[in-house]
Amino acid sequence: MSKSEECMLLMDEREKTTFSLEEMTHLLDGGKCKTDLRQSIEKVILSDPRMKPEDISCMSPQQQHNHGVKRMIYFYTDLAKKMSWDFTDSRCPELEFLPRTVGMATSLMLHASAFIPSVAQLGTKEQVAKWYTLGKEYFILGCYAQTELGHVGKGANHALVMAQLIIQGKSYGMHAFLVQIRDLTSHRPMPGVTVGSIGPLMSMGGSDNGYLSFKSVRIPKANMLARYAEVSADGTYIKKGDTKLMHASMVNLRVLMTKGEAVLGLEKACTIAARYSCVRRQGSLQPSKPEIQVIEYVTQQHKIISQIATAYAMHFTIQHVQAIYNQFLQDLDEGKVGNLTELHFVTAGVKASMTEQSVEGIETVRRACGGHGFAHSSGLPALLQRAIPSCTYEGDNTVMYLFCARHLLRCAQKVFMGQPLEGSVKYLSAEIQNKCRANKKEDFINPNILLACLQHKAQAMLLETATYMQYIASKGMNQMDVWNISSVQLVNVVKAHMLQYIFSTFLDFINETYCSPPIRDVLLKLCALYGIYNINNNATNLLKDGYLNGEQCTLMERVEVDLLQDLRKNVVGLVDSFDFRDEILNSCLGAYDGNVYERLFENAKNSPMNKDEVHEETYKYLRPHLHKGRDILKKMSKL
Amino acid sequence: MSKSEECMLLMDEREKTTFSLEEMTHLLDGGKCKTDLRQSIEKVILSDPRMKPEDISCMSPQQQHNHGVKRMIYFYTDLAKKMSWDFTDSRCPELEFLPRTVGMATSLMLHASAFIPSVAQLGTKEQVAKWYTLGKEYFILGCYAQTELGHVGKGANHALVMAQLIIQGKSYGMHAFLVQIRDLTSHRPMPGVTVGSIGPLMSMGGSDNGYLSFKSVRIPKANMLARYAEVSADGTYIKKGDTKLMHASMVNLRVLMTKGEAVLGLEKACTIAARYSCVRRQGSLQPSKPEIQVIEYVTQQHKIISQIATAYAMHFTIQHVQAIYNQFLQDLDEGKVGNLTELHFVTAGVKASMTEQSVEGIETVRRACGGHGFAHSSGLPALLQRAIPSCTYEGDNTVMYLFCARHLLRCAQKVFMGQPLEGSVKYLSAEIQNKCRANKKEDFINPNILLACLQHKAQAMLLETATYMQYIASKGMNQMDVWNISSVQLVNVVKAHMLQYIFSTFLDFINETYCSPPIRDVLLKLCALYGIYNINNNATNLLKDGYLNGEQCTLMERVEVDLLQDLRKNVVGLVDSFDFRDEILNSCLGAYDGNVYERLFENAKNSPMNKDEVHEETYKYLRPHLHKGRDILKKMSKL
Repeated sequence: MSKSEECMLLMDEREKTTFSLEEMTHLLDGGKCKTDLRQSIEKVILSDPRMKPEDISCMSPQQQHNHGVKRMIYFYTDLAKKMSWDFTDSRCPELEFLPRTVGMATSLMLHASAFIPSVAQLGTKEQVAKWYTLGKEYFILGCYAQTELGHVGKGANHALVMAQLIIQGKSYGMHAFLVQIRDLTSHRPMPGVTVGSIGPLMSMGGSDNGYLSFKSVRIPKANMLARYAEVSADGTYIKKGDTKLMHASMVNLRVLMTKGEAVLGLEKACTIAARYSCVRRQGSLQPSKPEIQVIEYVTQQHKIISQIATAYAMHFTIQHVQAIYNQFLQDLDEGKVGNLTELHFVTAGVKASMTEQSVEGIETVRRACGGHGFAHSSGLPALLQRAIPSCTYEGDNTVMYLFCARHLLRCAQKVFMGQPLEGSVKYLSAEIQNKCRANKKEDFINPNILLACLQHKAQAMLLETATYMQYIASKGMNQMDVWNISSVQLVNVVKAHMLQYIFSTFLDFINETYCSPPIRDVLLKLCALYGIYNINNNATNLLKDGYLNGEQCTLMERVEVDLLQDLRKNVVGLVDSFDFRDEILNSCLGAYDGNVYERLFENAKNSPMNKDEVHEETYKYLRPHLHKGRDILKKMSKL
Repeated sequence: MSKSEECMLLMDEREKTTFSLEEMTHLLDGGKCKTDLRQSIEKVILSDPRMKPEDISCMSPQQQHNHGVKRMIYFYTDLAKKMSWDFTDSRCPELEFLPRTVGMATSLMLHASAFIPSVAQLGTKEQVAKWYTLGKEYFILGCYAQTELGHVGKGANHALVMAQLIIQGKSYGMHAFLVQIRDLTSHRPMPGVTVGSIGPLMSMGGSDNGYLSFKSVRIPKANMLARYAEVSADGTYIKKGDTKLMHASMVNLRVLMTKGEAVLGLEKACTIAARYSCVRRQGSLQPSKPEIQVIEYVTQQHKIISQIATAYAMHFTIQHVQAIYNQFLQDLDEGKVGNLTELHFVTAGVKASMTEQSVEGIETVRRACGGHGFAHSSGLPALLQRAIPSCTYEGDNTVMYLFCARHLLRCAQKVFMGQPLEGSVKYLSAEIQNKCRANKKEDFINPNILLACLQHKAQAMLLETATYMQYIASKGMNQMDVWNISSVQLVNVVKAHMLQYIFSTFLDFINETYCSPPIRDVLLKLCALYGIYNINNNATNLLKDGYLNGEQCTLMERVEVDLLQDLRKNVVGLVDSFDFRDEILNSCLGAYDGNVYERLFENAKNSPMNKDEVHEETYKYLRPHLHKGRDILKKMSKL
């Protein structure tokens, strides 16, 4: 394609960048070695013609499914094997970059990233030797089956079933069982097994979610995964370790998914929207002047740049959480059981908060692209549709928030008793500041002032809610009603806690990592913007107890606009640093060269609907009427 | 189907209802006559086997398009004609109920509801006689073509093109031209016309949006729609009336669309989610007790009941706006041009605010249905996907908000000069109350207290922003920069104004309409909940200037929970009153009888993916691997 006017605009934008893209990319990846690893993986996968995704937006869900299975079977059993990538090992270095390059919600992904790791984590040495080996080579295909109608499908022949263990009428709670659900020769369901697809979902056309029910199905005792608990031949239940560890594999999936669907999704969406906003021109702020780039509008900056700041904050935070999890696993290998409560608490909160912020962010920047953000060729609808389910699966967000709220209420009890707290909740036991001392614009760019605001807000909301709950309980209300009528507030408490967690993790990263002054400067501004954006979104709880006054709020609104206008020059540099190749973005609006309009037109011309000039399948219904119209018009013109 | 436990639960819920469903339905429809008319239309359409929609969730976009055209050609040219329904006439009484019964975003809808009314409104008597007649009988098919790549497609043979009128080098602004784009015999594009589909969109699979470009295309002078302006034979431009009226037809589409996609969409989503929340049982607030209906959780009530309140508030408001528009048209017929500025202002604001609230609401209640809300068989994904584009088309919401902001700033100038305001902005010139006097829970159920809060908020935000803009302009900043850096605040001002508009319109309706005490009671509570929900969502601007204090905010949080728990008993009655037939909801989760699980299972079993026990199209890729696994397992068992 020729160098269009749009290409020139993006080149101009790149000139304005104040920092080294390479340095930023290395920071984002976690170091130069990781960038090299990522780029080499991307090169292998994206240059393989059999990995090129077809345009699934024109397909029926069934066609999408077929396409997905074909592509992923090739990927896992052929390409990955050839490259010696073992994605069933949760410490495989290439695994980290897999969602970025081939996507997450593919039909074999759950086998590799949920079924196999669960077997590895929950099975005895003998069980792992047998099933892990078979699964790792895709000789059996497993799925995960739990509670409700949902989760299985047409491909799997084994299921990891989470079910109540009942011995002689006594229930011992949920345990994991391996159940063969399809015949190994014919692939037909085993006797007593009813299994099938649950039908089309809002997105994830390529997925394979199913229903499963058992009627008088017996399995060998050896198929109960027995690393942490087993049943002896005489029916005695024997605990063999910390059964809480049975749920540790959930943590891994939660973190992987939050990163792969939510954080990466927002980064891709920001890349597309930011580039397009620099290329698209519409309207003018001064009459008689030519149309301007839409990124010059502060309303557009508010949509795009705030979300870039959110993406950066979440990126460094989820990387930190991943490091915590890896440390936990390493400790476990050395026989030490780390702080599982803290791990569950942090990952549940991060999952709920980030998936929610991500979906909101992707939709915000998608709408900022106008009508074109609605076309599949923009790449944006797919990102939204992939992120939305993450708010529900791996723990519904409201359930996650309330799970975290229970932990925070226990922390509040400790605060009331004067006991210190540790880890991510340490700040809750710190002394309460009762007024923000900032009084000029510059103060509010200081990240410590903003951190204090966010921490005060979470702390004050928690202690107010906990105090009220104690009060109504003391008046005789039963504990369950106290919990229930406080639950909406509790969800808000956790949201406030998580915002300060993400902000402070991002800030810690900036303070603790060596980087050049221009990088440090832009990261601190992104951090400040993330904080201010969220404070300005809703300052109710900072005003309620007088921590902030009205003038300070007004000042912060102005600082937000200043930050947006300051970061505007780096808008393309910041998204270029994510280093998404065009094949990954798959977007007419967001390609690196900015050649938006030629790509849009090329893409439209190639749509199946344009195969023929006359679309006979619908024209056949229109023809009789239109020909009648033709005859009438002919007569008219003769009059 | 048998009376399942779930059916019994819904029957119990219906027992609890405190008001007459019939009376509520009549209020919602606008009177008993309208209910009768609606039900009779629904009966005709829904009992016609050729109108039964197939399950489009299994289809490719192309298949959805074909299905849509076939169904709608039958509907418009056969069924509607037989019934003497003329949907091209914007005052056709049946038109009001059309979106509810057959949906909006169908491929012939734009012909009937945009192209034809525009011709009728913009054409001379002679032009209307010719084109309106042809279009009304579907003898020609028209589309609407404006600016960007987008809007046309495969079906239309004429386009109403909005383009600059240039006479001898001088531009006279946008005018409407009728251009034939396809040959009347072959349906091929006319010489110089490039036309085709723009490719798959995020939703609206059945739609027919296209690109269109002209190269040296000449049209007869008679094809310029010339009711308000014409060009004489010698090239003289002649204004024939108020050219502002050229845009009045946009108003109609905006209102129709807001009602059809946004308000109705939220009502349907609430119906589904409310019924399902009464039928679904999960967890327990008291250990040892059986699982409870999820509607008992206050977090669930907060999601569902607040949205029911929003749906009611928007319903009565959009009905009021429709009445204003109809009055405007009637006046026009009598030669009076009403207040077009006010009409544009109100409809633009209502469109932006309601589409945004609706999308947020539909997604909120969809997520409240857990994993099942993600299945197409729930009916919820389709509602979301239909509502989302309404935030962008017929005027992007940010553009709409800023359009309204200009008007509000002019109002602020009048307030500063002590001039009174009229119409929907009258309250802005009323005397400023500077403190809310409420101090006990009961006060905050009083709608006048809440209205004062909402009005104070909008007024204070507007005057603060306008004052600041004057201040920075006086310091020498140019007008365009002043506007730009204030634009984020201005959007928030308009949002606050619109919330008070919707609240006060709903309240006026309750106060001015005769209804029985139980109905009045429940409507007032819904109105209060709508107000409190929105105030609690973000009380920043009420706290900033001390209108509310912290104790009042805390009190309002508790009143909100009280209202939710009070309205809980009416949750099914309130959605039953919308009177959506099962065929319209098309949802396994939301059907009238509550038989959720049997329906879900039946639906899944009938999915195309389950046609065969073994899905050969994907199994062929899996087979080689799984058979290898089988052989290894066989060997193992022999060891």
